[in-house]
Amino acid sequence: MYKVVLVRHGESLWNQENRFTGWTDVDLTEKGVQEAIKAGELLKQVPYEIDVAFTSVLKRAIKTLHHILDVNDLLWIPIYKHWKLNERHYGALQGLNKQETADKYGAEQVKIWRRSYDVPPLQITADDERYPQKDKRYGQLTEQEIPLGESLKDTIARVVPYWEAEIVPQIKAGKKVLVVAHGNSLRALMKVLENISDEDIIDLNIPTAVPIMYELDENMTPLRREFLGDRKGVQEKIDVVANPSKIME
Amino acid sequence: MYKVVLVRHGESLWNQENRFTGWTDVDLTEKGVQEAIKAGELLKQVPYEIDVAFTSVLKRAIKTLHHILDVNDLLWIPIYKHWKLNERHYGALQGLNKQETADKYGAEQVKIWRRSYDVPPLQITADDERYPQKDKRYGQLTEQEIPLGESLKDTIARVVPYWEAEIVPQIKAGKKVLVVAHGNSLRALMKVLENISDEDIIDLNIPTAVPIMYELDENMTPLRREFLGDRKGVQEKIDVVANPSKIME
Repeated sequence: MYKVVLVRHGESLWNQENRFTGWTDVDLTEKGVQEAIKAGELLKQVPYEIDVAFTSVLKRAIKTLHHILDVNDLLWIPIYKHWKLNERHYGALQGLNKQETADKYGAEQVKIWRRSYDVPPLQITADDERYPQKDKRYGQLTEQEIPLGESLKDTIARVVPYWEAEIVPQIKAGKKVLVVAHGNSLRALMKVLENISDEDIIDLNIPTAVPIMYELDENMTPLRREFLGDRKGVQEKIDVVANPSKIME
Repeated sequence: MYKVVLVRHGESLWNQENRFTGWTDVDLTEKGVQEAIKAGELLKQVPYEIDVAFTSVLKRAIKTLHHILDVNDLLWIPIYKHWKLNERHYGALQGLNKQETADKYGAEQVKIWRRSYDVPPLQITADDERYPQKDKRYGQLTEQEIPLGESLKDTIARVVPYWEAEIVPQIKAGKKVLVVAHGNSLRALMKVLENISDEDIIDLNIPTAVPIMYELDENMTPLRREFLGDRKGVQEKIDVVANPSKIME
């Protein structure tokens, strides 16, 4: 039997300010740091002795991972960081808060962008300061790879090949793997693991910094899924995420 | 022209308590954290835009590196962690403070262990709780590789091959490399870079968390070495390290 643990990063500054974050590299809030430490303690209690970790190239995920590893005295393990685990790229919406977005594009359009499976947001252009190739960490990406505004479907299309090529082989080698990523890159992983439909994946809400532990058979089919932590605390977090007025990604 | 920057970790709890640390995985003090942040700011001022970083598997070095990268918004770069960059293994002395060591072995013997090039300290045995293979991070090491108490010469014999095989190729590929390590693993690197004799290397004292920037020619021969920071602050740190009553490794 195999295991893997997924964790969404702790609260970030823009979660708090209710802004579309996407690939913007915003930091954790102090609450986010505390959530990450708590996630580390939950994994220590299991115990789940992580052998290798995967994360994005965004600091809110990397720092969440570092806090988890520090609590478990495991800062020395290998960490693989890749843009394919980044949050969904929110295109021209990145940086806008809920009110600004509604004022600019209308509340109905924003709802469509946020809640549809395959409608991408308004794309950014190469002259936009938010264009990814202006950031050194994305300098190696080809024009084809650079996202300018992704639907959830687009995000899944880059996360799943990375999962299959890089993460699954480690799990199958018997390693205890931890993946610290983002609301939508984790939706991608949970969609493939649980074979969730395109319609239902939209309604899957992933609480911040709650370790999600899967037990898997040799085909990577889940035998069991558990949200670690006290039931009430986890449910409250899921409720917050499920309410679109409460948190943005 | 090539560059490389070496940084010794910030103050650790056992530096403060004046204990032989070696491979014991002690944390940074709050002063150590502040020193690391300061080192990051100095590199940012240069600017030295790090492409890849190397460190040991000990948290005082890993955390120093994380703080440096965070200040520079570079947490996303690749980090290679390896035991061959660890501090000198201090054998049976690990965990003892200056007074305890002198009481147990005599002040003269301790001076010989600390200040000679090729005299190893009293070795630990396989039944010792400090035996490295009891720690999962050293589980892959062969019996030949596991140090049980190293002279400075022994430390150099494992650091230099790692430098040549892993770090030099990155420098020659034009990458801006940062190495965050320990008093004695950095002595090893500075010995090979500056061709320092076995006698003189003993007297080379490396201040905590002061970036040491080398400019190198194509043979990795230094054209220039600079301790970053204000001259007075660096000199005070070197004086502290040069006084054996002030700090232990």
